[in-house]
Amino acid sequence: MVAFGGGHGLGASLRGLRHAARELELDITAIVTVGDDGGSSGRLRAERDALLPPGDLRQALAALAADDPARQLTAQLLQYRFAGSDSLAGHAVGNLLLLGLMEMLDDPVDALDHVAALVGARGRVLPMARHAVGIEADVLGADPERPGEVVTVRGQHAVAVALGHVEAVRLEPADPPVCDQAIEAIHAADWLIFGPGSWYTSVLPHLLVPRLAEAIIASPARKLVTLNLAADNETLGLSVADHLAALRWYLPGLRADTVLADAKWVGEPEPVHLAAETLGARLVLAPLAVADGSPRHDPESLGVALVPVLGAAR
Amino acid sequence: MVAFGGGHGLGASLRGLRHAARELELDITAIVTVGDDGGSSGRLRAERDALLPPGDLRQALAALAADDPARQLTAQLLQYRFAGSDSLAGHAVGNLLLLGLMEMLDDPVDALDHVAALVGARGRVLPMARHAVGIEADVLGADPERPGEVVTVRGQHAVAVALGHVEAVRLEPADPPVCDQAIEAIHAADWLIFGPGSWYTSVLPHLLVPRLAEAIIASPARKLVTLNLAADNETLGLSVADHLAALRWYLPGLRADTVLADAKWVGEPEPVHLAAETLGARLVLAPLAVADGSPRHDPESLGVALVPVLGAAR
Repeated sequence: MVAFGGGHGLGASLRGLRHAARELELDITAIVTVGDDGGSSGRLRAERDALLPPGDLRQALAALAADDPARQLTAQLLQYRFAGSDSLAGHAVGNLLLLGLMEMLDDPVDALDHVAALVGARGRVLPMARHAVGIEADVLGADPERPGEVVTVRGQHAVAVALGHVEAVRLEPADPPVCDQAIEAIHAADWLIFGPGSWYTSVLPHLLVPRLAEAIIASPARKLVTLNLAADNETLGLSVADHLAALRWYLPGLRADTVLADAKWVGEPEPVHLAAETLGARLVLAPLAVADGSPRHDPESLGVALVPVLGAAR
Repeated sequence: MVAFGGGHGLGASLRGLRHAARELELDITAIVTVGDDGGSSGRLRAERDALLPPGDLRQALAALAADDPARQLTAQLLQYRFAGSDSLAGHAVGNLLLLGLMEMLDDPVDALDHVAALVGARGRVLPMARHAVGIEADVLGADPERPGEVVTVRGQHAVAVALGHVEAVRLEPADPPVCDQAIEAIHAADWLIFGPGSWYTSVLPHLLVPRLAEAIIASPARKLVTLNLAADNETLGLSVADHLAALRWYLPGLRADTVLADAKWVGEPEPVHLAAETLGARLVLAPLAVADGSPRHDPESLGVALVPVLGAAR
């Protein structure tokens, strides 16, 4: 199966899949957004012209790390972020390691496969495109002084934190080169999984890459959409129905089989049922959130919910 | 066996031992100088107050990496140095990885053992002391404008490149804390190996650490001294006999069993024979250098020469 996304949302999805993989035989491929221009990844793009922003790729690799203590320590090292105020401060070790390996090998997939082996990854991590892309969005009310106007916001980080209503989101370049391995994984998949994650900057970008969109539409795989628990800046004021509508807006041919949502966080289920139906999907409600009340997916709960969905006969 | 040293010299020694280990059962521990204050390691000490300068430790780990392609690629990644002119330029990936792991684990030995596992190291790498040390030397003629005067040169890098004659070398602090594991390795060793390497800054510093010196003297292990092929700045004008005399000067009780030197580079053998005898050692001459005529040890030739020495019955 293929899980699309980026950042913490994809990490949650992959950790959930790893839990489900205890009961089901799952062959996991993560296809990861490459638009990040904030933080450590953003600095590596700006200062070193990094081929790919490594942060989201690193997080996916750490999420797939094997359970034994040595591999978990390696994953923890990848995620370790230098503190302090010197020139290393803010960089995650795994970002620097991926950067070095990508420079050395000049092939992002070889680099990712090698780091995957270092953490004994239970799956493969591939980039959404072979080089970094830009993300920009037209946002209504992004400028608080001109609330009725649509402003173009440039850069994934800026879009992710922008206030206002996202009217349109685009990639730059519009048709980036993709990895053959990603296309092959989509063709071979029995499930394609979208979300959770930052909707406009982690979940939707894949649908904007023409060759990925084509492969997704052509794929006979079943499709699962896992909804977020709570809105973030970029989706404030967006209903669950809007989230699902956005998927179809950017990829009109998209149909889904299952929409998975947390029973408690989703609120009134009826509009969500109807929204799922517009995608051709049935809604599955289950407890997915961590116990402390914060809007984060609990990997084990997500895994428990995924088993009957992914294991169901067609 | 325990190999003492630092930098390229220790790397050559360890690669030679790895070749010899194809014919002999060798349990290798490298005990590595921690005085480096130049280059990437120096910046990490100055800017981040790194617990240990990682460069020499990294080189030893890479030298001990297993032969399979995946582990060799990991070793190559550790040795990969960022090019360019940004803030990462000049840092080796392995230095940043060791730095992060030492910060995370707060124990240099745990950090080194973990990286050793990542490269499938055929042996263990330990630091000479539990934290970075300073190296300083009194050097006659270090200041070309005052050729007859003794000047104190501070810092390993400055000592290594100083012109003039090194009269005395000291550590700061004079009695740094050591790793118990290093003392245990010396006690358990059947061979202790000194050199090749920068004599004052990579080979001698171990003898200046009181607890290591004590353990070396107390050890029943046989001792091997591998001589350098050519002089570097810090030993310009120093004869082979002077090299061996320096060992005894800094550790008066030191006796050796074998002095290994390259037949072609050593020149007239008689003075070297006599110098070896002052340590109680026999001189073994063998071809040790690479074929291209440069003064570098060839790992395979060194390995071939080491087999009869290390394999000989007592």
